[in-house]
Amino acid sequence: MRDHAPDPTIGELSEGEILRRIAARTGRAVAAEVGPGDDAAVVGTPSGSVVATTDTLVHGPDFRLAWSSGYDLGWKAAAVNLADVAAMGARPTALLVALAMPNDTRVSFVERLADGLREACDALAPGCAVVGGDLTVSPTLTLAVTALGDLEGRRAVLRSGARPGDVVAIAGELGVAARGLAVLFDRFRDGAGAPVPPQARRLAAGEPEALAAQLRPSPPIGLGAVAAIAGATAMMDVSDGLGLDARRMADASGVAIDLDARALGDDPTRVIEGGEDHALLATFAADVLPPGFRPIGLVTERVEHALLVDGVAYGGAGGWDPYRDWDAVSG
Amino acid sequence: MRDHAPDPTIGELSEGEILRRIAARTGRAVAAEVGPGDDAAVVGTPSGSVVATTDTLVHGPDFRLAWSSGYDLGWKAAAVNLADVAAMGARPTALLVALAMPNDTRVSFVERLADGLREACDALAPGCAVVGGDLTVSPTLTLAVTALGDLEGRRAVLRSGARPGDVVAIAGELGVAARGLAVLFDRFRDGAGAPVPPQARRLAAGEPEALAAQLRPSPPIGLGAVAAIAGATAMMDVSDGLGLDARRMADASGVAIDLDARALGDDPTRVIEGGEDHALLATFAADVLPPGFRPIGLVTERVEHALLVDGVAYGGAGGWDPYRDWDAVSG
Repeated sequence: MRDHAPDPTIGELSEGEILRRIAARTGRAVAAEVGPGDDAAVVGTPSGSVVATTDTLVHGPDFRLAWSSGYDLGWKAAAVNLADVAAMGARPTALLVALAMPNDTRVSFVERLADGLREACDALAPGCAVVGGDLTVSPTLTLAVTALGDLEGRRAVLRSGARPGDVVAIAGELGVAARGLAVLFDRFRDGAGAPVPPQARRLAAGEPEALAAQLRPSPPIGLGAVAAIAGATAMMDVSDGLGLDARRMADASGVAIDLDARALGDDPTRVIEGGEDHALLATFAADVLPPGFRPIGLVTERVEHALLVDGVAYGGAGGWDPYRDWDAVSG
Repeated sequence: MRDHAPDPTIGELSEGEILRRIAARTGRAVAAEVGPGDDAAVVGTPSGSVVATTDTLVHGPDFRLAWSSGYDLGWKAAAVNLADVAAMGARPTALLVALAMPNDTRVSFVERLADGLREACDALAPGCAVVGGDLTVSPTLTLAVTALGDLEGRRAVLRSGARPGDVVAIAGELGVAARGLAVLFDRFRDGAGAPVPPQARRLAAGEPEALAAQLRPSPPIGLGAVAAIAGATAMMDVSDGLGLDARRMADASGVAIDLDARALGDDPTRVIEGGEDHALLATFAADVLPPGFRPIGLVTERVEHALLVDGVAYGGAGGWDPYRDWDAVSG
């Protein structure tokens, strides 16, 4: 064994040493029959299918190290993938994590990232944990997470099942993560536009919560299965903004979605346009709205427009498109 | 609809347009109950478990665009992940692909990458195909693939099951991909060390095959299940070189592995040290070696050293460690 500085960089350690430090922190998935350390993991799927999704965080477009800690990143990468599993009506069972990072990344950063992955699973989807992964050197810190889940015998809830007459409902926050991002972009950059760490003393009421929603989102993962059991006709994760995602659901279902502005709070535009909250958008027959979901509109017959607000076609941009909105500021 | 140049960059298209172009080329997985287009895919797992693994290719450390086409990259990313599934004794069923790329990437490059993913699946693991994925903007082209597989009721074959007296066997090539990499590094770089495209007229006998093994490997995926059915006691994918990976198997199993130099061909050192062939290394009781596997040594009691050649402790470096060997040449 070589001696190392108290907090070496990953370039100073072997891959095996880094993996051992991560494995000590990732916990164990209840469904894991074979965990980390072999060529692949084996995860139990007693109901005969597996739900699988992948989502990536890239330094620059998706996060800035001046704003996000390793812990924040691990938490967020877990949360956004757990939300996609939940949006199918499934219970998350396991994560696989592909981590590409510069050689000068501190091991303590990676260890805290592993803590964030584990604690997000423990808080949002108990029983789920990292079962495998991959480490690679890259000039750009990149975190690609795959989440697996179990439908427990239920049918998957797709985007395409919304029917005219259904209630449109939301579980979780809308527009809060976007407010957090606006606070970061507006107030925590230096004169050249580079991000600087947020300071608590410069935050107004509600802003700490908005930053947390942006940096460490807590989507209502358990309510995905609740919605499926209650008979949700369609469901999806609101990652790109309610407007864009509701349009996607309406298009997939061949219907229109008519939102009720009064149900969207004081700033309906921010609620409709702001992304990254990872709330669950679902539709239900009018009499079965389960606890945790609040009504925000109705499904109607499609005439021309996919999205309406108070019966009027919504003309805003309606959401976040990484290929349109990417901001090249790095740091 | 906007009009686009005949081969636009991904920065000129919406995410939805790019996804449609990819989805037209990825084929359909036989086991997919829900394919691309929803929050997550659903893949059938009739035998009650799923094998899952992830592996990443990063521009610079893992490939150079002067040497690899989009098609090559898609093929290789599929092949290396399929090999990890095969090494558990499973049959690959589905891939998820996280693709992070610069905004100036040509759509034709992405389309060819999708072709490579599909054709590698069709050639190496029929029935397997891409069921989901994620697109992100990144300064560094990165391809993180997760592969899923089905054990069809068999037990997973781990690294830890090798027993003294077992035959050590290989299916697939050893040292050929390393020869291909050496040809690229030695002969297809310019005066400043930057990679330049390989030219067929500058290749000697055997070198086109070596380049193909490096750029578009064809590991014997189907033999993973064959080995499991034949009763393989341990198995793994040789990705980091026979020496390093045989040591890992010996350590996991608490045994030693003694290789027979005569079985390793004309250049045993290259065979032992060269990585990236993705051959299957397996151990079997002496009387059950299945077709496709050739014996290369014996499992013995562990005395001191994990790896021996002709009974003598092997002292070489024994394989590829991306955290030690990374070469910073890019292009």
